[in-house]
Amino acid sequence: MKNSKQPAVPLPEKPAFICLHKVGFAHCDPAGIVFYPRYFEMVNATVEEWFEARLGFGFARIHGAMEAAVPTASINVDFMQPSRLGEVLHFHLYVTRLGRSSLDVHIRAGGGDAAADAPLTAATTRFQMNATLVFTKKGVTGSAPWPDDLRAALEREITKQDQHDT
Amino acid sequence: MKNSKQPAVPLPEKPAFICLHKVGFAHCDPAGIVFYPRYFEMVNATVEEWFEARLGFGFARIHGAMEAAVPTASINVDFMQPSRLGEVLHFHLYVTRLGRSSLDVHIRAGGGDAAADAPLTAATTRFQMNATLVFTKKGVTGSAPWPDDLRAALEREITKQDQHDT
Amino acid sequence: MKNSKQPAVPLPEKPAFICLHKVGFAHCDPAGIVFYPRYFEMVNATVEEWFEARLGFGFARIHGAMEAAVPTASINVDFMQPSRLGEVLHFHLYVTRLGRSSLDVHIRAGGGDAAADAPLTAATTRFQMNATLVFTKKGVTGSAPWPDDLRAALEREITKQDQHDT
Amino acid sequence: MKNSKQPAVPLPEKPAFICLHKVGFAHCDPAGIVFYPRYFEMVNATVEEWFEARLGFGFARIHGAMEAAVPTASINVDFMQPSRLGEVLHFHLYVTRLGRSSLDVHIRAGGGDAAADAPLTAATTRFQMNATLVFTKKGVTGSAPWPDDLRAALEREITKQDQHDT
Repeated sequence: MKNSKQPAVPLPEKPAFICLHKVGFAHCDPAGIVFYPRYFEMVNATVEEWFEARLGFGFARIHGAMEAAVPTASINVDFMQPSRLGEVLHFHLYVTRLGRSSLDVHIRAGGGDAAADAPLTAATTRFQMNATLVFTKKGVTGSAPWPDDLRAALEREITKQDQHDT
Repeated sequence: MKNSKQPAVPLPEKPAFICLHKVGFAHCDPAGIVFYPRYFEMVNATVEEWFEARLGFGFARIHGAMEAAVPTASINVDFMQPSRLGEVLHFHLYVTRLGRSSLDVHIRAGGGDAAADAPLTAATTRFQMNATLVFTKKGVTGSAPWPDDLRAALEREITKQDQHDT
Repeated sequence: MKNSKQPAVPLPEKPAFICLHKVGFAHCDPAGIVFYPRYFEMVNATVEEWFEARLGFGFARIHGAMEAAVPTASINVDFMQPSRLGEVLHFHLYVTRLGRSSLDVHIRAGGGDAAADAPLTAATTRFQMNATLVFTKKGVTGSAPWPDDLRAALEREITKQDQHDT
Repeated sequence: MKNSKQPAVPLPEKPAFICLHKVGFAHCDPAGIVFYPRYFEMVNATVEEWFEARLGFGFARIHGAMEAAVPTASINVDFMQPSRLGEVLHFHLYVTRLGRSSLDVHIRAGGGDAAADAPLTAATTRFQMNATLVFTKKGVTGSAPWPDDLRAALEREITKQDQHDT
């Protein structure tokens, strides 16, 4: 297992969102492990589900009525251990920075027998990544400021992930 | 267009390998631009083609007779401009480091009307990435040293990309 | 909407299995609708889930310990209406024939507001297909007979789907 | 190898279009053979390339300026033999019927050492399919008549494929 080359990002107390993805036949390569571009499909689905279920902004609405998009601007990822056919992976998403028109998230995926919300350790983490997402508007070059209501929803997520469960 | 956050890696004089990929319907999302996980399929195909055409080690042989694999251990990527349906992208691959059992490559993809081997500029680059690949052997935990013949082929590529065309 | 060209296959009373798939960004094309090869990934995931959850034969076991596979030999499909980003589709799977080493299934997927187990009508069906799956063993040319325990599990599914709910 | 269940469609003298696709790592499943949904991505790319290179109607133009699409309405396919990592497959496309707003094509893909334009035999064919494509216009329910210039281009393809090479 390799050591991460990623710049250390201090993580909040707990993830803002946890999403499960089962490794299917379509995700696996001739070595019987997940082909890494398929991980990014799972990552994208995690972000989509988070936007819809927690923020109240589904991608159908963002790409439809809002005429906007949330493209990925950069990714820094370490693949630490392979994942195999039939495994259920736990995706933990943390918001690490909210900018005027961008958003940094840390996403790590783990497997094994632990509960989905158990902290992921070096022994169970399959990959961890930092990504920057940006808000864009159709017909506007470059990024655009987060709309107020979407920004407010993102801020609630940040507050929530720093709260201790007491 | 965003500035790269990537650590600057000094690039050789010229790419070791150039490969073209046409953006098809299957690569595009509802915004009409390439969905980024599809870029990684193109990146993987670029590496495969390089291994087969230049190094003489096709993935069928590596995964077959050699009982080995060349998984990706880490990626650092900046998406700079979108790519659209029907465009032909030029993938430029540089070897930036050869380790005992790993390999760092820089891959950047560009579009536009320039020749496929024209240097990619800020205006034409769609994304640029640094990736670390490792050599692994079936049944062996962790990475394994590059076999001598494959290492020799990689070293020839490094030498070649530093030669001036005179 | 087109009329089906498929040969009519008499369907059992109720499906053997129902599975939900949400249409994500990764499934959609530049027209904003599901790109049909992605439907087949969902179909494959439906069959996998059925094998694991109902038959007790996960694909990890079939491809692993059993050294076998269940490839698709033929498909006959009619795409009747498009599906859009954010929709939850209901996949209904019927067993229509069990052979010595093959299996015919009818799969139809529907959307809309009806319950997942409501019968799919012409107004709600997105596609319907007949497919033949075969059982194969590693190293054996052609198909192989279903193992007794897997055959017994398939026969239970057939029995179950013909029972009235009374 | 299975016998085809497909209704026999009389084929023209020679294919209208031949397109090569190399089987890459991204196309293969844990059994080391092409995962069938990836075949449909290759089929779609074949049709796209044919439309652009021969008919003069690229999909970027069809989905862009023409505000139209060419969705697939039905498919009937037999998978006859598996294809493996590293193989180059020859896709042969025949037009079998041109309707007012639809198009029937027969596509078969073969491998092996024969030339790309050598007739595909039972021994070399990996799959064969009949598909119906339809022309649709944005905002119009159902199919729409082929535009005159696109129809004329399709008719030239039909004429060409019935000509003997003399």
